[in-house]
Amino acid sequence: MKNNKHISLNLNIRGIKQSPTLVINELSKKLKNNGKTIYSMGLGQSPFPVPVPVVETLKMHAHEKDYLPVKGLKELREAVAYFHRQKDDVEIKSSNVIIGPGSKELMFILQMVFYGDVILPTPCWVSYGPQAKIIGRNIQLIHTSFENKWRITGKQLNDFLLSENDYYKPRLMILNYPSNPDGGTYSAHELQKIAKIARKHELIILSDEIYGQLHFYGKHISIARYYPEGTIISSGLSKWCGAGGWRLGTFAFPAGFEWLIDAMAAVASETYTSVCAPIQYAAVIAFRGGILIERYLWHVRRILSHLADRCTKILRKAGIKVNSPDGAFYLFLDFSPLSEKLKKSGITSSKILCERLLMEAGVAILPGEDFLVSSEKLTARLAYVNFDGSKALSMSETIPLSENLPEDFSDNCCLSVIEGIKKIADWTDSK
Amino acid sequence: MKNNKHISLNLNIRGIKQSPTLVINELSKKLKNNGKTIYSMGLGQSPFPVPVPVVETLKMHAHEKDYLPVKGLKELREAVAYFHRQKDDVEIKSSNVIIGPGSKELMFILQMVFYGDVILPTPCWVSYGPQAKIIGRNIQLIHTSFENKWRITGKQLNDFLLSENDYYKPRLMILNYPSNPDGGTYSAHELQKIAKIARKHELIILSDEIYGQLHFYGKHISIARYYPEGTIISSGLSKWCGAGGWRLGTFAFPAGFEWLIDAMAAVASETYTSVCAPIQYAAVIAFRGGILIERYLWHVRRILSHLADRCTKILRKAGIKVNSPDGAFYLFLDFSPLSEKLKKSGITSSKILCERLLMEAGVAILPGEDFLVSSEKLTARLAYVNFDGSKALSMSETIPLSENLPEDFSDNCCLSVIEGIKKIADWTDSK
Repeated sequence: MKNNKHISLNLNIRGIKQSPTLVINELSKKLKNNGKTIYSMGLGQSPFPVPVPVVETLKMHAHEKDYLPVKGLKELREAVAYFHRQKDDVEIKSSNVIIGPGSKELMFILQMVFYGDVILPTPCWVSYGPQAKIIGRNIQLIHTSFENKWRITGKQLNDFLLSENDYYKPRLMILNYPSNPDGGTYSAHELQKIAKIARKHELIILSDEIYGQLHFYGKHISIARYYPEGTIISSGLSKWCGAGGWRLGTFAFPAGFEWLIDAMAAVASETYTSVCAPIQYAAVIAFRGGILIERYLWHVRRILSHLADRCTKILRKAGIKVNSPDGAFYLFLDFSPLSEKLKKSGITSSKILCERLLMEAGVAILPGEDFLVSSEKLTARLAYVNFDGSKALSMSETIPLSENLPEDFSDNCCLSVIEGIKKIADWTDSK
Repeated sequence: MKNNKHISLNLNIRGIKQSPTLVINELSKKLKNNGKTIYSMGLGQSPFPVPVPVVETLKMHAHEKDYLPVKGLKELREAVAYFHRQKDDVEIKSSNVIIGPGSKELMFILQMVFYGDVILPTPCWVSYGPQAKIIGRNIQLIHTSFENKWRITGKQLNDFLLSENDYYKPRLMILNYPSNPDGGTYSAHELQKIAKIARKHELIILSDEIYGQLHFYGKHISIARYYPEGTIISSGLSKWCGAGGWRLGTFAFPAGFEWLIDAMAAVASETYTSVCAPIQYAAVIAFRGGILIERYLWHVRRILSHLADRCTKILRKAGIKVNSPDGAFYLFLDFSPLSEKLKKSGITSSKILCERLLMEAGVAILPGEDFLVSSEKLTARLAYVNFDGSKALSMSETIPLSENLPEDFSDNCCLSVIEGIKKIADWTDSK
């Protein structure tokens, strides 16, 4: 090109970087390739293999090549509705389920289609905010605290909504539990209080329950039980089924939301068209569940819970504040008790904290600012997934589920996690 | 919900329906389920199976579950660059290739990221326009004619650009050949003339070459040969590889377009994340090509070319104008010589034409208005793909490629196509 014309980019997109979790993954890979020992605790990817029956079903359907319906394969939508009925005790019609290439894509289309403000309790997942920015939506943050286990309360929500002084404004709140970045969840009582406020203000809740089946004790509760008429449940294969790279997410809508589903399907038909056919056939088996999937889930939960326990103990000893998670595979570290000490080393933001940790201790984790916590707060998210999930799973299978995993399980099967955690503790001590 | 609040939808999305090709597919299925004989010539899906080595590779990689890099698997980006070097004689660096879940999704993200007008020669594919509408981009149509084989000329483009009287306006023109909806393509000379004008005005060309390998004589030429510095080549597995339902598309950029690739990758990382991992591994084999893929392509081309010939002859006899296509699997019918007769039956628009044809003759085709031709022009697109591609392919394989297919091949292997075409001819005669 002669370059007489300016580079012409949508202003909403300028300055948007690749999603931080993906960037750190690619950076860590690069450093590793250069021979440096890196503890990659940045990307939130399940370390466990996709359950065998699901992989086998993919093979059986490898030849399927037809475009499937925009909203998804009928059998899959039925399986997802069944899944939510069984697991969450929530009545979902299969006609109100939509399948997308990852729940992230569905969230993007939802934000694009729905014309209203987006309310985000923070810390929150890295992509909600940038999606709103790309589309040009208004984001409203409600900050939570370590002391309140990074959970939003009904009162906080009510105060915020009243302060806005605009009852009729359409609003969407995204609630994620068990949570990325902190692994915490809500009690039934807490959900009931939030539901009550949401109902009063006719708030739409997008309930991101992608980690629901990774509640350590299998006791995930959906807010849809208390606010069925206004809750969209988001799920998918990426986390509990270990199939992040397969890209399949699901939204389940309440009755009366056909206007929103149909608008989303219209955009879907002009963008991703439909989700990869062979993957949809395999996903049917995953969502239908059964004994093999349940067994897999219980082993996965036991391993993650065991690891969370070991990790939090080591980190707390080093003076880092961290809540005990209820599920998923993240810890949200709060370095604030050490902030004076860290400041002396020039560490004044969560971003600098993570850069220094990566360079000096070889541990890759993500700064709290990526989760919309203000950077001077010195928080960071750690994903304790840098281990061989297949090995850990097969070892766990030798120990009856009625027993706890032995103390040395993580040293035998997840050594790099423990080493990475110790590196953080040592690095903190050395400051 | 109490429904005190209005349904709140993005105004750009109101009125957008599901993509017409998908809608007609779902409608035809429904009618069929009700026992009606329907000739489904609406959806443009390859009837041929995915080549065996590609399916086998998918099976081998069914367990791959990691998130792949946003821009795509390294080996796949290399294979795509190699493909364009080999097939199109165009120098593409693998670092300038991006993989998406269908080229449609990549086009959407391109339109979202690039801030400029979109120029569309019509008739054009059904999704370019709605995508621009959803995003809020300005579309500029340049209408072509049957007489000029539905092709835009360099002169037309030049006249249009001069008429705009704004040299510095950023513009993207989408050029699709062999073309959906008419199967026509451009000669080297025509492409050179367009390239010259594009260069003068620094127009970015998105060259949609998804049907490139379905040129009947394997003689596809990319405009990137004449305008390498300003052409983005779009391709994918959906058409020439028969894998529409797999959802994998590719964009290959010229050097100097890193600003655009990187912005697209940023949006990709906040939407689809990366393309389904097992599919990407399988696609490597497809793009690398080789004797099995070549043999498949030559049989596919021979069958399609044979069918196109049979169909055009029957339609012309009935007084319908139709150009002989150069590739792909579409015919664009022009009923204008019969417009007086049709008007007497109340058929005054392409939409009514197609509705009546579906109800009265049981043939589903798409009205020209979906391809942005004005509705009173009485045009329609027909996809001659309603036959068993596996059967046809295996029959073709028994006949040496050096020979033509026998006259009765289509009656033996693609009878429903011929029947559907005859239904259209009879219906036209009956008016």
